[in-house]
Amino acid sequence: MAEATNRQILLVETPKGKLGSEHFKMTETTVPTLSDEGALLVRTHYISLDAANRAWMQGATYRDAVESGQVMAGGAIAEVIESKSSDFAAGDLVFADTGWQDYAVVPAKAAQKVPSMEPKTHLLSVYGVAGLTAYFGLLNCATPKAGETILVSAAAGSVGTLVGQIAKAAVPDCTVIGIAGSDEKCQWLKDELGFDATVNYKAEPVFKALKAVAPQGIDVYFDNVGGDILEAALFRMNNFGRIACCGAVSQYDGAPPSAGPRGVPGLIVTKRLNLRGFIMSDFPNEREKALKDLEGWVAEGKIKVQEDIIDGLENTPTALVGLLAGENRGKRMVKVV
Amino acid sequence: MAEATNRQILLVETPKGKLGSEHFKMTETTVPTLSDEGALLVRTHYISLDAANRAWMQGATYRDAVESGQVMAGGAIAEVIESKSSDFAAGDLVFADTGWQDYAVVPAKAAQKVPSMEPKTHLLSVYGVAGLTAYFGLLNCATPKAGETILVSAAAGSVGTLVGQIAKAAVPDCTVIGIAGSDEKCQWLKDELGFDATVNYKAEPVFKALKAVAPQGIDVYFDNVGGDILEAALFRMNNFGRIACCGAVSQYDGAPPSAGPRGVPGLIVTKRLNLRGFIMSDFPNEREKALKDLEGWVAEGKIKVQEDIIDGLENTPTALVGLLAGENRGKRMVKVV
Repeated sequence: MAEATNRQILLVETPKGKLGSEHFKMTETTVPTLSDEGALLVRTHYISLDAANRAWMQGATYRDAVESGQVMAGGAIAEVIESKSSDFAAGDLVFADTGWQDYAVVPAKAAQKVPSMEPKTHLLSVYGVAGLTAYFGLLNCATPKAGETILVSAAAGSVGTLVGQIAKAAVPDCTVIGIAGSDEKCQWLKDELGFDATVNYKAEPVFKALKAVAPQGIDVYFDNVGGDILEAALFRMNNFGRIACCGAVSQYDGAPPSAGPRGVPGLIVTKRLNLRGFIMSDFPNEREKALKDLEGWVAEGKIKVQEDIIDGLENTPTALVGLLAGENRGKRMVKVV
Repeated sequence: MAEATNRQILLVETPKGKLGSEHFKMTETTVPTLSDEGALLVRTHYISLDAANRAWMQGATYRDAVESGQVMAGGAIAEVIESKSSDFAAGDLVFADTGWQDYAVVPAKAAQKVPSMEPKTHLLSVYGVAGLTAYFGLLNCATPKAGETILVSAAAGSVGTLVGQIAKAAVPDCTVIGIAGSDEKCQWLKDELGFDATVNYKAEPVFKALKAVAPQGIDVYFDNVGGDILEAALFRMNNFGRIACCGAVSQYDGAPPSAGPRGVPGLIVTKRLNLRGFIMSDFPNEREKALKDLEGWVAEGKIKVQEDIIDGLENTPTALVGLLAGENRGKRMVKVV
């Protein structure tokens, strides 16, 4: 093995308020050795950064909480160095929760083999968690119909950029509206990614702005943020509207919120709305079709893949802090090697 | 015509806080005459009382708001006295929004012909809005599966009594838990209607009580109340749980709430919940099957129909005020004639 050491980034303290790089620390240890049957030793290549990383620190979600003192959890594209599973061989590329470290031992059954492709980064963006989350949330959960008005929040983020473009590719005559946090992002969504209209939630009251850009109301809302923006959307939804509940990034980086949006459940009843929570892994049987569709749209130029690649494992904490502050456009990840 | 006058109950003032009988007044006017083509003159027999009546005073919902000075709105079983529609004849029985009055002129297309049956009151309870609301909300929206745990709030009310009994009749091996507002109601739900367990929300904290009676969590929640009880249920739902959003009676009789339940949308995402709002009329194509199923269960003794009949049009205001205070068991209605 070339490297003698394994760099690891630990969560040293569970943040009570905003996450900062001071909540992490890097240590060095030896590269782990593989003893258990059914396990893999992998070398981390690209670590995925996601708002959900912050949510994991708040407590158990669809996975155990990340506790202080542990290597920070995170999905990554990694290469198998040594395998004690007949399903994997050295050299295979996998997606697995390696955590923020150079090397990891992971159970083979928790690793997903991914195809070799260039650029490999697409395995985290359009063909990875971001692309499949956007695809399943929009098409399988919110089921938009031709001509409908589709709203997405965190529209300039990894999932949002794809939701808007998938909508344009898959839903005839739809109107796509994105909510983002700066005029520059908004302009970029319209000029580069084909969004029909945008709202800068930091510059204008969202409810009024939605009324102006979608006077006909909203049929589908892909919610990445929760909080006040979800509330504004609820009040602007049309009857029989559908909300794909993907995340609540407005509520991750601080104390848990003391209340939910007004209009729940009153508006859900009177407008006969459907709110559905999901995560990407809920749709194993749809995965193949989704990847084929995404490849087709990329090939046709209907999806422009947006990636934001930070170099160096040591920069992972600041990269996550920056993501939570809305620095990135498209899929943020860290190149480890 | 036997009566020379038409008694009407007007909403004289839109309540700001709790509804009282002082918000209504009875007047007498002449029986309306029928002039418009496509209209019906009907004689009101039984007026349905529903928590939603109060919600209509708060503003537009799935129907226009009831404004002060208007005859109070309300659905009723009524008899056609005179018809200017080829679809109806004198003597037909209909369900229509007659409002709280002896006679009404209603558009034929807004009237629904109902079969003659005895007792006619069943046309408002098990075979009317209450029965169909319970049926569609539980079976079409929340889609319970064998062995699941099903929770219903306002369990002793018109819809709740039926939700619990329909669950027992239609869902093999399910566990049915009801939330109601007194120990007497709770005992009655268990002894008479076959509920497995109950929670008296006025006597115990709901979250803890739910943990005790449903340690395995909740799969389906039929929500009639919203507010704190919805919040407690959200925190006790199992992954992939379904919530049928039928009403929010906790929030009707006062100022609109300043916030929604905590956990929205965070718990919806992490538990992959589905919340669906509905009203009974959303399922016209399922109506026939629903009525047939309900008739079968009544015939087999699996559904005991619970009705609470108040006599006299003049008592309608106090009957509604009492319903909002939780006086009734089962379907409350007013016998006019």
